[in-house]
Amino acid sequence: MTGVAPFTCAMPLRWSDQDLNAHVNNAKVITLFEEARIQASSQWFRGIPERPRLVRSLSVDYVHPLHYGEETTARVWISRIGTTSFSVHHELHQKGRACVTGRSVMVCVDPEVGRPEPLSPDLRAALEAALIPEDTAERAGQL
Amino acid sequence: MTGVAPFTCAMPLRWSDQDLNAHVNNAKVITLFEEARIQASSQWFRGIPERPRLVRSLSVDYVHPLHYGEETTARVWISRIGTTSFSVHHELHQKGRACVTGRSVMVCVDPEVGRPEPLSPDLRAALEAALIPEDTAERAGQL
Amino acid sequence: MTGVAPFTCAMPLRWSDQDLNAHVNNAKVITLFEEARIQASSQWFRGIPERPRLVRSLSVDYVHPLHYGEETTARVWISRIGTTSFSVHHELHQKGRACVTGRSVMVCVDPEVGRPEPLSPDLRAALEAALIPEDTAERAGQL
Amino acid sequence: MTGVAPFTCAMPLRWSDQDLNAHVNNAKVITLFEEARIQASSQWFRGIPERPRLVRSLSVDYVHPLHYGEETTARVWISRIGTTSFSVHHELHQKGRACVTGRSVMVCVDPEVGRPEPLSPDLRAALEAALIPEDTAERAGQL
Repeated sequence: MTGVAPFTCAMPLRWSDQDLNAHVNNAKVITLFEEARIQASSQWFRGIPERPRLVRSLSVDYVHPLHYGEETTARVWISRIGTTSFSVHHELHQKGRACVTGRSVMVCVDPEVGRPEPLSPDLRAALEAALIPEDTAERAGQL
Repeated sequence: MTGVAPFTCAMPLRWSDQDLNAHVNNAKVITLFEEARIQASSQWFRGIPERPRLVRSLSVDYVHPLHYGEETTARVWISRIGTTSFSVHHELHQKGRACVTGRSVMVCVDPEVGRPEPLSPDLRAALEAALIPEDTAERAGQL
Repeated sequence: MTGVAPFTCAMPLRWSDQDLNAHVNNAKVITLFEEARIQASSQWFRGIPERPRLVRSLSVDYVHPLHYGEETTARVWISRIGTTSFSVHHELHQKGRACVTGRSVMVCVDPEVGRPEPLSPDLRAALEAALIPEDTAERAGQL
Repeated sequence: MTGVAPFTCAMPLRWSDQDLNAHVNNAKVITLFEEARIQASSQWFRGIPERPRLVRSLSVDYVHPLHYGEETTARVWISRIGTTSFSVHHELHQKGRACVTGRSVMVCVDPEVGRPEPLSPDLRAALEAALIPEDTAERAGQL
């Protein structure tokens, strides 16, 4: 078990996040993931020169509907570090349980040539400080 | 190879679909998937009594950025039929190539009890008429 | 001067509220107005049977750009009470100044016939308790 | 009467433009205005060096609800030309009638100092070619 804690923040919902089915729309969930990831990144990557980072792939499990009016918390952590990419795990909680979980693969891009570039040593160090590997998270009951 | 063709429609982009990175935002892509799926469903499921259908899970590959100002086409088909769920394959094309592909697992829910219910025979028949199984799609070069 | 205070709440921005111009998009501002008005309404109209309320018209002044990353506060009050409609004044503040102000005219609709209906006595009483008439607000330096 | 015709384009709605009230949300209407204005501007202002243009104010009349599934048309024209600003008139039509109309005041900004700058002669000429002054529009039954 690492001693790393997930980045956690309140994620206030808006009435407009709901769709006709009266719960938070499945695409809006991805916007909430993005918001949590950006807030976490500004803490994790403080002082590291910014390079473009793109979402390369995404997988999401919608376990329970999210309801407007309920307090909502986001949890985010780094779950994998590769050569040119890393994975971010996202969760949105209501009433003490994870209602939606998802993983995005982020890739760093060389803006000159528009192609993936290796993670810089600075970025890699920052990622390692936020890493909760998937098997560890499972053992700790976080997945 | 089945004779089934994907549902295909134009998917006009909006300037507001872009984010600060000047291409279509990764969450907005999910809204475009949703729009294509809803248009396809209104054709596939014509005359079938509506039951709530929820997105149970989602996986997306962002292969190339989507650019505002380019003509965009959506292709959607049924890729799997289960007992209480089915899978929808989505693609967004620009310049003749699939820029984003994704699969959503849809589950039918009994609105009285809020739990998955078996696909009705009518729905199953409609799904079969739109089915392009994943191995078939691969062989036909559609994946 | 009335003793009525505006309804005030934090209005956390999201990265996705920005458009290509790197400040909060002018249409997203209307979503933020809506969110503030809905939060205020759930306090103002507690216990009053809900009737459909539609936005009949809207006017907005964009005085200063809103920036993601700055703390944002919304202020909302009732500025006019009519026969079948009332006006809501909205403000979004950053760094101690109103960056955007707007007024929406809300109309109550009889859902059976789809036409405006007179404000109920209960609703009128609730509106009066939240009313800061426009000339009062001006004298108090709130406009 | 001028011989100038409004810029007209199809404005396909998305299921997600609806809110819980099952018609197009009042804030989404502003996004549709924006889309129509941007499409018109790319035609009106072709070849003119781009300067930042901001929405300074906005007024909207929601006359009839817009419904998803109906064909929707946008009409846009220049309704006023000032010194540092101009006004754009927007309409969204369904079933042959204007359901929402609105006017935005656009201001050109000197990006160096962040302040309004006079309309350039080129821009002014382009605006004049798209101008339908408000009194003309009224006489022609366009308002």
